Amino acid sequence: MARDFSDPDMEARLIANSQRQGFNNWFGVTCVAAGNGQVEIEVKIRPEHRQHHGYVHGGCVSSLADTACAWAAATAARADVVTSSFTFHFLKPASGDGLRAMARTVRAGRTQATVEVQVYSETESARPVLCGTGLATIAVLPARVAA
Amino acid sequence: MARDFSDPDMEARLIANSQRQGFNNWFGVTCVAAGNGQVEIEVKIRPEHRQHHGYVHGGCVSSLADTACAWAAATAARADVVTSSFTFHFLKPASGDGLRAMARTVRAGRTQATVEVQVYSETESARPVLCGTGLATIAVLPARVAA
Amino acid sequence: MARDFSDPDMEARLIANSQRQGFNNWFGVTCVAAGNGQVEIEVKIRPEHRQHHGYVHGGCVSSLADTACAWAAATAARADVVTSSFTFHFLKPASGDGLRAMARTVRAGRTQATVEVQVYSETESARPVLCGTGLATIAVLPARVAA
Amino acid sequence: MARDFSDPDMEARLIANSQRQGFNNWFGVTCVAAGNGQVEIEVKIRPEHRQHHGYVHGGCVSSLADTACAWAAATAARADVVTSSFTFHFLKPASGDGLRAMARTVRAGRTQATVEVQVYSETESARPVLCGTGLATIAVLPARVAA
Repeated sequence: MARDFSDPDMEARLIANSQRQGFNNWFGVTCVAAGNGQVEIEVKIRPEHRQHHGYVHGGCVSSLADTACAWAAATAARADVVTSSFTFHFLKPASGDGLRAMARTVRAGRTQATVEVQVYSETESARPVLCGTGLATIAVLPARVAA
Repeated sequence: MARDFSDPDMEARLIANSQRQGFNNWFGVTCVAAGNGQVEIEVKIRPEHRQHHGYVHGGCVSSLADTACAWAAATAARADVVTSSFTFHFLKPASGDGLRAMARTVRAGRTQATVEVQVYSETESARPVLCGTGLATIAVLPARVAA
Repeated sequence: MARDFSDPDMEARLIANSQRQGFNNWFGVTCVAAGNGQVEIEVKIRPEHRQHHGYVHGGCVSSLADTACAWAAATAARADVVTSSFTFHFLKPASGDGLRAMARTVRAGRTQATVEVQVYSETESARPVLCGTGLATIAVLPARVAA
Repeated sequence: MARDFSDPDMEARLIANSQRQGFNNWFGVTCVAAGNGQVEIEVKIRPEHRQHHGYVHGGCVSSLADTACAWAAATAARADVVTSSFTFHFLKPASGDGLRAMARTVRAGRTQATVEVQVYSETESARPVLCGTGLATIAVLPARVAA
């Protein structure tokens, strides 16, 4: 499926930043598409992402959501960003073997953006299940003056 | 320092559950004290907890906060719980080599609890820095009838 | 426009409850449609709804959002409900002469529901402006046994 | 009781702004003390603040909380502010004849502040009851250049 918001330059920049992150490398975040205030990212679930009932740990679900929100805001702001706050509602246990987060910037301001996100649990043989939804405030960092 | 809310039986139960979690084993959560609606937990920071500026990744900060809230509610409810929703505000970058979360149940209801949490970044040589604060709604699961 | 979620019996019950509320009578909430987990409500703005720049006061915007969420959950639960928590993001000033809130239940559980809401500011001569978005946890109250 | 954060100049400015707000005049907000990032405000409850069970309407409880957060941030920023987002948890019904909100800025940044708030329901003859708690992000507006 084509993602019409895809911006290959932006995707390359987000992926390069992500590869320099110890956590994201461990987590295994993959960028499906990013650009114009929107993002779709996914992660393949491994045993160390799970909790004791076999579901994906809430910390992994919300981390993917948070990352999607920050990346979506970065594509809108075309600047460095950092999550200021986020609210996440867990709707269903994530029992599949993949997680997909779709984030969309609903307001892009000069110093902050508001982003909404949905996370889906996926299994090869079944329809994706909406397992959580959230809202984030992402702070846009002032550009650094080059030395 | 003595934690007067400590309940050793509850701590043993929480630790046993945690050790069966792939994510928590990877994350390295340690229970300092838990009981009577309160919890103090910590994690020693490793390179794979960090992002590209060297700070602890926001996903790790909020995961520790979420875990603290769920555990605090579990000690109040004396039942299995699951996070229903949480809101987290990032206040300062976590630049230290340890994170500590302190959670306190502000309302323990029959089907849900409200919990507040603070997360501190710690370094051996300096005062702890408050790096985030949050509020969570934790759902209390109905007891399962034994077979 | 037809609202296909409309449930006239449910609407009558919500309106009757609302008319017994001092605050809602003052506020002037009108039910456009309600049923099957969804709600559309509106309020005509009067001077005492505004703040000192002439915009609708944030307390009125979020009150309408909160009411829409509670009503949406009530139509899904077919029971009395009460707001447990809500998060609201203000996106644009509400400068129009009417406010419209659209709420949709995204998860209806036995003891709580998660509802999302959008609030629009409206003026006769212009397109509605999305002025805020939110997420709420609504608690479903246990049915009272009749005496 | 003395409020050591009280800043009379700031209080005068907040009260003057509030008196120009249709909503606040109707609501009846009184400033007990404000300054240095903190605020204590109260409202005497009238019938049009209540819902159909006789409790203070949630919209009034959260409006008071939101106002307290914005004012607290304004005293820290010494600038005009506007609520960007807030999360509020209702803990107990507000059955008293007064509401009191206490807000405290936990982080005051250049473009935004994070503020926590507690709301108490009060009756002459009984101890105050904590009826809600929240967290807000308050945006600090850029200063306008005088003409």
